[in-house]
Amino acid sequence: MSLIVQKFGGTSVANTERIFNVADIVTNTYKKGNDVVVVVSAQGDTTDDFIEKAQAINPNASKREMDMLLSAGEQISASLLAMAIEKLGYPVVSLLGWQAGFSTSSTYGSARIKRVNPDRIQKELDKKNIVIVTGFQGVNRYDDMTTLGRGGSDTSAVAIASVMHADLCQIYTDVEGVFTADPRKVPNAKKLNVISYDEMLELATLGAQVLNNRSVEMAKKYNVELEVLSSLTQVPGTIVKEETKMEKMLISGIAKDNDVARISIIGVPDKPGLAFKIFSKLAAKKVNVDVILQSVGRDNTKDISFTIPQCMMQDAIEVSNQFVDVVGASSVVYDENVSKVSIVGAGMETHPGVAAAMFESLFEANINIQMISTSEIKISVLIAREDADKAVTTIHNKFFGEE
Amino acid sequence: MSLIVQKFGGTSVANTERIFNVADIVTNTYKKGNDVVVVVSAQGDTTDDFIEKAQAINPNASKREMDMLLSAGEQISASLLAMAIEKLGYPVVSLLGWQAGFSTSSTYGSARIKRVNPDRIQKELDKKNIVIVTGFQGVNRYDDMTTLGRGGSDTSAVAIASVMHADLCQIYTDVEGVFTADPRKVPNAKKLNVISYDEMLELATLGAQVLNNRSVEMAKKYNVELEVLSSLTQVPGTIVKEETKMEKMLISGIAKDNDVARISIIGVPDKPGLAFKIFSKLAAKKVNVDVILQSVGRDNTKDISFTIPQCMMQDAIEVSNQFVDVVGASSVVYDENVSKVSIVGAGMETHPGVAAAMFESLFEANINIQMISTSEIKISVLIAREDADKAVTTIHNKFFGEE
Repeated sequence: MSLIVQKFGGTSVANTERIFNVADIVTNTYKKGNDVVVVVSAQGDTTDDFIEKAQAINPNASKREMDMLLSAGEQISASLLAMAIEKLGYPVVSLLGWQAGFSTSSTYGSARIKRVNPDRIQKELDKKNIVIVTGFQGVNRYDDMTTLGRGGSDTSAVAIASVMHADLCQIYTDVEGVFTADPRKVPNAKKLNVISYDEMLELATLGAQVLNNRSVEMAKKYNVELEVLSSLTQVPGTIVKEETKMEKMLISGIAKDNDVARISIIGVPDKPGLAFKIFSKLAAKKVNVDVILQSVGRDNTKDISFTIPQCMMQDAIEVSNQFVDVVGASSVVYDENVSKVSIVGAGMETHPGVAAAMFESLFEANINIQMISTSEIKISVLIAREDADKAVTTIHNKFFGEE
Repeated sequence: MSLIVQKFGGTSVANTERIFNVADIVTNTYKKGNDVVVVVSAQGDTTDDFIEKAQAINPNASKREMDMLLSAGEQISASLLAMAIEKLGYPVVSLLGWQAGFSTSSTYGSARIKRVNPDRIQKELDKKNIVIVTGFQGVNRYDDMTTLGRGGSDTSAVAIASVMHADLCQIYTDVEGVFTADPRKVPNAKKLNVISYDEMLELATLGAQVLNNRSVEMAKKYNVELEVLSSLTQVPGTIVKEETKMEKMLISGIAKDNDVARISIIGVPDKPGLAFKIFSKLAAKKVNVDVILQSVGRDNTKDISFTIPQCMMQDAIEVSNQFVDVVGASSVVYDENVSKVSIVGAGMETHPGVAAAMFESLFEANINIQMISTSEIKISVLIAREDADKAVTTIHNKFFGEE
């Protein structure tokens, strides 16, 4: 007998039919003799509907009251799912975040889980109940309702799995798992059977959003085995676990990120400490800098380029222009029509030819590389946005073969 | 400075406009220097929508999960009202039943309030917050969500008022107060300025449903002064308080109840103990018997008539037929087309002419009285349903004068 935590997102419980589909998955797992804890998000558009209602009343409503409102969403989906499971004839109980022992920080709207006291969940499991827990929510030290922010239900599920030492934490979504590239763009993208936490984190950060990052970090920290799978098909998904336990794949996935812009400061005097200055000023403005490139000096000046999320363009240009005036650089140029394409793979640490193969494939496709950034298990290139989809396909063919 | 509890029903918070209307009432009370605790029901049709959703999934859903679902309704209305009050610029906090200290019995769907711990509410009042509390709900000793059953929000409000020794508990509805008769039927019905708890209880029981009975009982027990008033007009309503403090009115109201049926068992042998037998059998079937009439014996037999709610007709006829067989009575006859018309007034205890005046007015209108029942402050007659509206008008004119 195993303890299995299953998490279902909003689309998985969007209507009566979908709810019964989830009830089938849950009761099939229970029938096999497993203890089952289910974590649910709010139904389909409930959260958006609530936000709309709130906006009509007060666009500046306090986050405390927003959390009070939003947390009703999971309460509705959890109780409806419980009713469906009752209908199928199985013992079940639904629990709200506070009933399930979720203590969070006080930051309304984006609270962090501080502690999960599993006593109540355990008591219900001991009674042979299927336990449904509202995801995305908890209570803070004032006993006020809090929500965990976007993707918070994944984190709720992993938190329960970690504190209760679950054998598996299944994250049900509308995709069948983690793919080597976006399957909507790359027809021969392959589903991975297994991927490491670190690779999953790199992929999530890079725009292949399947799992919430915080949930993967937590799973890694507490060594919770995850499975990403579809609630609509009955096929195994992708297992996310510690890489030491498996054969390292050369590369596990390719991701594209369009939410990126490039800024270059031209003709910066080549004196020590100046580079630090611009990045500390950007940090003070809360601009997240991603890739940084500094050209080799020429005529005692150098060029500094960096990438940022699109929404921070204005702030970054402003800071850069001030910097140009202060240090006597020549100009600021920027480009919004860029994409970052990355390959991720734990295997590349020990295979030095990976970067070369990636660059070669881009060269063969006549795609110009503007910037390069590498980490131990990731290589990212900045290219023109118009080339991005072609780049993903080209690189995918290089590593995974043509269809 | 006073402590005022204000309760608003579902229609009072049905949409954004209505919510702001309530926010105005609340903040106007607060502006005058009062501490204000607000109790809200779920918005308009929310509860019915939830029930419909649940029915589609499982018509036999457990009451526990129904309560989990339904209690989300007040959570939504409470947080939205809080946002509206924030918009008007006043400090406010919304609290769920469990946060507001509501402990109830374990009977899901119709739990009774066992205790209200007002610590959190008081703490928020001390911080000068307007406090909004979700009506109709609490938690039982398992820390599970419970609802109080129909009209439960009135009871929630009175419970807070009693435990916090509020100076006034205002029940806002869509009528301006308690009237001497149904104002939609009797155009010259008068709004009462004041009525006693006992009179209010008799009127509520008799079908003039303005206040939930349990809330009036609780208000009487803890001597909470109630005011029934409209959330849509700015006029004083009806005060409900202990009768000793006021001049006794001869009669305070006339009520009609259509949810009644009459059953007569004809030709019951005139032996001791037989009457007891039929009523204990009815009680065993959980049939609520209201008025009982036993004819004077003739030929060593008598007729026993009684009234019951319409929904219990089938059970009552079945029990009566068995009774006829067992004791050797002649037959069972029944009539669903009857109404009970009652007058209520604390003053009638000391004015013996009231009953006579009521019967006289019915005689003048040529209305036949089928059964009569009296208590210290109430006189009820059973008449044909087709005569009921005319009876109310006739009696009203007799006691309150024509328009």
